[in-house]
Amino acid sequence: MYVVLLSGGSGKRLWPLSNDLRSKQYIKLLPDPYDPTRQVSMVQRVWKQLERAGLAKGALVCAGRSQQEILQAELGDVPLAMEPERRDTFPAIALSCTYLVSKMGAKADDVVCFIPVDPYVDDGYFETLKKLEQVVKATGSDIVLMGAEPTYPSSKYGYILPAQKHEGYIDVAGFKEKPEEPVARELIKKGALWNCGVFCFRVGLVLEKLKGYDAPTTYHALFDAYGKLPKRSFDYEVLESAKNLKAVPFVGMWKDLGTWNTLTDEMSTNTHGRVIMSDKNENTHAINELDIPVVVSGMKDTVVVAAYDGILVSSKEESAHLKDLLKEFQQSPMYEEKKWGVVKTIDQNEHSVTTKVVIQQGMCATLSLNGKCMQVEVIEGSGLIDGSSAQLGSTFSCGKEVEIKACSVLVCIVVTLR
Amino acid sequence: MYVVLLSGGSGKRLWPLSNDLRSKQYIKLLPDPYDPTRQVSMVQRVWKQLERAGLAKGALVCAGRSQQEILQAELGDVPLAMEPERRDTFPAIALSCTYLVSKMGAKADDVVCFIPVDPYVDDGYFETLKKLEQVVKATGSDIVLMGAEPTYPSSKYGYILPAQKHEGYIDVAGFKEKPEEPVARELIKKGALWNCGVFCFRVGLVLEKLKGYDAPTTYHALFDAYGKLPKRSFDYEVLESAKNLKAVPFVGMWKDLGTWNTLTDEMSTNTHGRVIMSDKNENTHAINELDIPVVVSGMKDTVVVAAYDGILVSSKEESAHLKDLLKEFQQSPMYEEKKWGVVKTIDQNEHSVTTKVVIQQGMCATLSLNGKCMQVEVIEGSGLIDGSSAQLGSTFSCGKEVEIKACSVLVCIVVTLR
Repeated sequence: MYVVLLSGGSGKRLWPLSNDLRSKQYIKLLPDPYDPTRQVSMVQRVWKQLERAGLAKGALVCAGRSQQEILQAELGDVPLAMEPERRDTFPAIALSCTYLVSKMGAKADDVVCFIPVDPYVDDGYFETLKKLEQVVKATGSDIVLMGAEPTYPSSKYGYILPAQKHEGYIDVAGFKEKPEEPVARELIKKGALWNCGVFCFRVGLVLEKLKGYDAPTTYHALFDAYGKLPKRSFDYEVLESAKNLKAVPFVGMWKDLGTWNTLTDEMSTNTHGRVIMSDKNENTHAINELDIPVVVSGMKDTVVVAAYDGILVSSKEESAHLKDLLKEFQQSPMYEEKKWGVVKTIDQNEHSVTTKVVIQQGMCATLSLNGKCMQVEVIEGSGLIDGSSAQLGSTFSCGKEVEIKACSVLVCIVVTLR
Repeated sequence: MYVVLLSGGSGKRLWPLSNDLRSKQYIKLLPDPYDPTRQVSMVQRVWKQLERAGLAKGALVCAGRSQQEILQAELGDVPLAMEPERRDTFPAIALSCTYLVSKMGAKADDVVCFIPVDPYVDDGYFETLKKLEQVVKATGSDIVLMGAEPTYPSSKYGYILPAQKHEGYIDVAGFKEKPEEPVARELIKKGALWNCGVFCFRVGLVLEKLKGYDAPTTYHALFDAYGKLPKRSFDYEVLESAKNLKAVPFVGMWKDLGTWNTLTDEMSTNTHGRVIMSDKNENTHAINELDIPVVVSGMKDTVVVAAYDGILVSSKEESAHLKDLLKEFQQSPMYEEKKWGVVKTIDQNEHSVTTKVVIQQGMCATLSLNGKCMQVEVIEGSGLIDGSSAQLGSTFSCGKEVEIKACSVLVCIVVTLR
């Protein structure tokens, strides 16, 4: 069976740690599921779980091009289907299917499960994925979904409505998006399940849809023609017309860690980074990515997050509404994770940008900071800058671009004129 | 009459805005008493009040050497008695008296008032100072104090105990430091006053004490011999043996803005710097000196302060105990105000320090950052660096020292190797 992790766009719900270049799925704040002393990101956690379940060898990540570097930095060399631009879920799923065919040897009859990149779940979730494949094969259903057994009448989730119950799966009668609480209570009584956003089907189903659009069914050709695919969701384009929809129930932990109050609940420590907490705090978390120390005292039910993009101080309750608060707020990202290291903006004005660039040992970086000219000064480590030997104190004046190779971990202060 | 503003040492009670180089008296967060649209520091506010009361022409500031630059930056060219090292209040007061004699033409018989540099008071305070002088002259008292009429039985202040009441002043029977609340209540019933830390006396009183120690009575000579003066308080060395102690009552606003909860009470706005406050906050203040935006939501009775030295998030109540919390915390200052501008540390590691240096128009700066070598890059403005013309993009490699002259406001990124 193939598994595709569908990576959504960037969001502001975990600002200031998430920005246009770093989405919430890449923030390393969660305990490693198999080694709680280490901290991993959502995508690293899921990938580890896929490996443990024996599903990683057929797994693929589908994401926007801007996420390529951070994905490789976090997961290493895993298969990546890169969306040349953001469209919607149908184009992304179609591109992934062509990748499976062109690059991973998938046949039209093979089964694939699409899952979100950021489910916070226990290992049972991945065993349930295997059952989805069995149901596709056994029943001839077009699409099999995963439905979590509701634990309370949430008005935040979508519900899968049951028609008939079978051994291990149900027939799907329809869907209900985010019902009011009393409605949700009624639905649960009737056996409705939370829609986990998981789709399992034969690869051919989507290839046929592509043919219907006269679109190519190989990866590189579809990549080039991506802009011509309709900007439509998979739900609208495929799910609504699918025959014999089934769903497999999942009983176990299934959480959305999309806001600071839900994410901090899962952290194994109350602080991260350089934080001094007095003993007068209650249910308070502080996360600090800056070198500047953070001191927290006398706070209750509060989250403090200090990062290059901003400093957030919020009650946990209000942190769920961050997206609305930041609607008007525009700023270019000040922290960027690259395959070879990180770039942090430490100062900027009208005329210049000063960044601290860290290049990991053995890595090569090409900096092109849209500047008229660049001044690079090495403040740690050694390497080659535009072919010349560079060590602590070496200074280079460069043009629009500079090639840096790090022998040891190399840290530079780079001043770019706009 | 002469007036000396005695500037205390640095403190951590207003961390992170106060550090070893910037004390609380220099932080510009208070409304200008005569133009509430402008913000001034404690020392600027007091100086303006002295001017308004006609007392500035005989006024002097006494402070540690490390405060010289910031005092000149904030007050301009006012008379400064500089302690070559920190000892205690007796040496500081004695040095100030010699300054009055050597530099300002004071005679032994002239009267001087010593006041703290940071009283948050109304203009009546300065009119009361004039009464202190009259009482010294009229009664022949060695020392006349100012006593604020208590408004509640505080256990945080010292009390002046009355012997006999006269028209406009009292005879002092003794003192009581920080009594328990019930004791304070009894004292107030008997007419005790809060000790404002103001001493008024004839200059000769202290000159005689200096002679008793065989210490010089001229400014430069005492400056050189400063290390030999006893490390003792004025209270111990002079006040306790003084004859005919009197005190003049002061009725009016008199506050100690030494902690964040008291200081924020006096701010004219709830935010300072780049701050986004949601409409879900209550009695919350946010002060931001960084370029990184601060977002505050859902907070109550909280103070948030973001500066180069640190980020504080505290309930107002706990902010009064900051000094204890930071007892163990040691860090060199990351923000330094100079006569010619400011130096902000934007990055540092084992091998290097990167600073952003702002030099005001027309000013000259000598940088000597204890480094082996320095790299200076101009990112705004123009001027002369070690005699050569410098503008946007100019880069200089320097040795231990560099001379910078700013034609317009000049901003540089300076990387120093340790």
